[in-house]
Amino acid sequence: MCGTENTTLPSRRPAASNGTARSAPSPDTSSVINLDQGDPTMYEAYWRAMGDRCSLTISGSEAMSYLSNPKGPCWFLLPELEKSIRRIHRLVGNAAAEAEDGRYIVVGTGSTQLVNAALYALCPRDQPEPTSVVCAAPYYSCYQEVVELLQSKLYKWQGDAHKFNKDEPFIEIVTTPNNPDGSIREPVVNRPNGKVVYDLAYYWPHFTPITHQADYDIMLFTFSKCSGHAGSRIGWAIVKDKEVAAKMTKFVEVISIGVSKDSQLRAAKILGTICDDCQGANTKSENFFDHARRLMTERWEKLHEAVKRSESFSLPKYPKNYCRFSGEFFETHPAFAWLKCNDRVKDCESLLKAHKILARSGSRFGADPAYVRLSLLGREEVFNIFVERLSTIKIEISNGNGHHI
Amino acid sequence: MCGTENTTLPSRRPAASNGTARSAPSPDTSSVINLDQGDPTMYEAYWRAMGDRCSLTISGSEAMSYLSNPKGPCWFLLPELEKSIRRIHRLVGNAAAEAEDGRYIVVGTGSTQLVNAALYALCPRDQPEPTSVVCAAPYYSCYQEVVELLQSKLYKWQGDAHKFNKDEPFIEIVTTPNNPDGSIREPVVNRPNGKVVYDLAYYWPHFTPITHQADYDIMLFTFSKCSGHAGSRIGWAIVKDKEVAAKMTKFVEVISIGVSKDSQLRAAKILGTICDDCQGANTKSENFFDHARRLMTERWEKLHEAVKRSESFSLPKYPKNYCRFSGEFFETHPAFAWLKCNDRVKDCESLLKAHKILARSGSRFGADPAYVRLSLLGREEVFNIFVERLSTIKIEISNGNGHHI
Repeated sequence: MCGTENTTLPSRRPAASNGTARSAPSPDTSSVINLDQGDPTMYEAYWRAMGDRCSLTISGSEAMSYLSNPKGPCWFLLPELEKSIRRIHRLVGNAAAEAEDGRYIVVGTGSTQLVNAALYALCPRDQPEPTSVVCAAPYYSCYQEVVELLQSKLYKWQGDAHKFNKDEPFIEIVTTPNNPDGSIREPVVNRPNGKVVYDLAYYWPHFTPITHQADYDIMLFTFSKCSGHAGSRIGWAIVKDKEVAAKMTKFVEVISIGVSKDSQLRAAKILGTICDDCQGANTKSENFFDHARRLMTERWEKLHEAVKRSESFSLPKYPKNYCRFSGEFFETHPAFAWLKCNDRVKDCESLLKAHKILARSGSRFGADPAYVRLSLLGREEVFNIFVERLSTIKIEISNGNGHHI
Repeated sequence: MCGTENTTLPSRRPAASNGTARSAPSPDTSSVINLDQGDPTMYEAYWRAMGDRCSLTISGSEAMSYLSNPKGPCWFLLPELEKSIRRIHRLVGNAAAEAEDGRYIVVGTGSTQLVNAALYALCPRDQPEPTSVVCAAPYYSCYQEVVELLQSKLYKWQGDAHKFNKDEPFIEIVTTPNNPDGSIREPVVNRPNGKVVYDLAYYWPHFTPITHQADYDIMLFTFSKCSGHAGSRIGWAIVKDKEVAAKMTKFVEVISIGVSKDSQLRAAKILGTICDDCQGANTKSENFFDHARRLMTERWEKLHEAVKRSESFSLPKYPKNYCRFSGEFFETHPAFAWLKCNDRVKDCESLLKAHKILARSGSRFGADPAYVRLSLLGREEVFNIFVERLSTIKIEISNGNGHHI
């Protein structure tokens, strides 16, 4: 992930071929815990409990060709995955994704690759100046890195969309629910010559009520945040315009000649199983979304409790809405906590680091460093150490400059 | 692949999960055959015959985290894959890749992504002019597309390395054996301020004798051409300089947050099995390299025979060399035929198209359109139709302008 550095979080080294599940070692309660990265390992336990139902076996001779669907608009997209993607959106009701309605699917190596692909597809090649790319602050810290990586003449990073007031072509990225702060968003620029890319990575019913079926020109989703399978690097775009879909496909073709078919097969299987279970195929256990929403609800309750005990931080308030998927009213439970230190502390990241909690500073998101983003998607034991540690942090006035104990 | 268009080659749609192998339908002998793309499907039959020895099973809870080796120089590289990569180079003797000797491995989504990563890593960010990227013609047609894709200010495509004579920083890509023409190459610019990236995709003993252990600053390899598993999109770089490896890792991190772990697991298993078999683990059948070299030899014999019967084309001559891996003398058997029409025809691609053979024109490789590149890596039945069709093409003088019958 952007800004990855050394971490003390244990990584799971998967078994090479025998399909057995090995648990990660538990972190020492005194060790540094890394909540900087949004690594969705909290869902491992659920998938482990599913046993062989989601196991995928690939023989040595399968999926060898570059080609998946040579006559389709995205020639490297496996038909199995396309089918599972359209099915899960139909079932959840979070996005219009029907082929009959002219919605094209483009698969990418994670949705990150598709942010690149969308910028490539939307920026004309014959313009004198690069197109401005903006996003309302606080914005996902990786967008700027992506836009600036290769110093392209096609586009340039222009930061906070609230401050954009030029009569020039622009692209606004709208992340909703937002990373880092979980807010529900709409475009803010609303000027002529603009195009909007919707990053809907978190618009799933474990994070937020599904209030409407999104139906925008370009919508990005990722397997990482839907089911927690970040290691597979599968993202997809739902695109209305055939030419834009073709250009995005071209980008992925030139930059990496398509997308891993092994991971496409795996995503097809797991998304399909989620759908099957939501439709009653598995009567023994909760479906994935119900399970994951319950976990997120529990974590947010523990987090609020810790913040209350500490008296040193605050969290955003989230509205309660009716979810068309679950048929219930509930609050957004974002994947990240957007935590603010009370007024005496200006640098929340340093404060937490002193307590062996690694977080990402608000400054990385175009916001005040009194904020940090903390991942709530880690393993249970790490999350529990985090809330326990957070609840004991007390900010006191020591010398009037906001130093903390 | 670059320049992909509709194709009539049947694609195999792999079984979703049961591991059974389904055969592709045979093409009609009158249908268009596509040899434009270097899709290595010829090896499917070998891997099918290997049965379950190379099957990989991944449970639903494995390989979920973004992280593979958080403390390693390439944090998304699975240790299993790193081990298999170093092992296969040690066994084959084609490249110096030992950790103890300070060689770093960076994994990519195909070696194509690593070409991008290498350019990013080698081009300074503070220079007034983009760094020139060159390759001796005929050069792989995708390099230009990769370099020009995002109109980067870091680098620019400058075409044929033979023509480069500026006193400026440059990067030369050396592909050896070369795509498209199979020649064995060395750098040709040899001026100050240059850096060299070696694309060694075809430096394996089924394509060419292993005459020496390559030991260059940056060497690129790909699973696609080593074992034929193009659909997995796994490439790797062997890098001497730690800082360059770190920058290449950063590029892959920002552009796609790493590389599919499912495919890394599969590549680790298959490369490991190739090594096991070369060391005698499988006494029932040939090891992969012996098998693949025999197939390539047979195909080149058939191709030479067809060219001889036709009397309309010519092929390059390749030297015979001692292979340190196999202990035998043999000729390079490139993955592509670099076919030249005789002097009466100026556009070989059109000539072949009229005979329902899709090839890639020499002009795409910075060379004369009297040449075409034809993939020799397709399925057996397609290859046989190709040589049969080629052998019947006769170029005659019709009106003095080189029109053909």
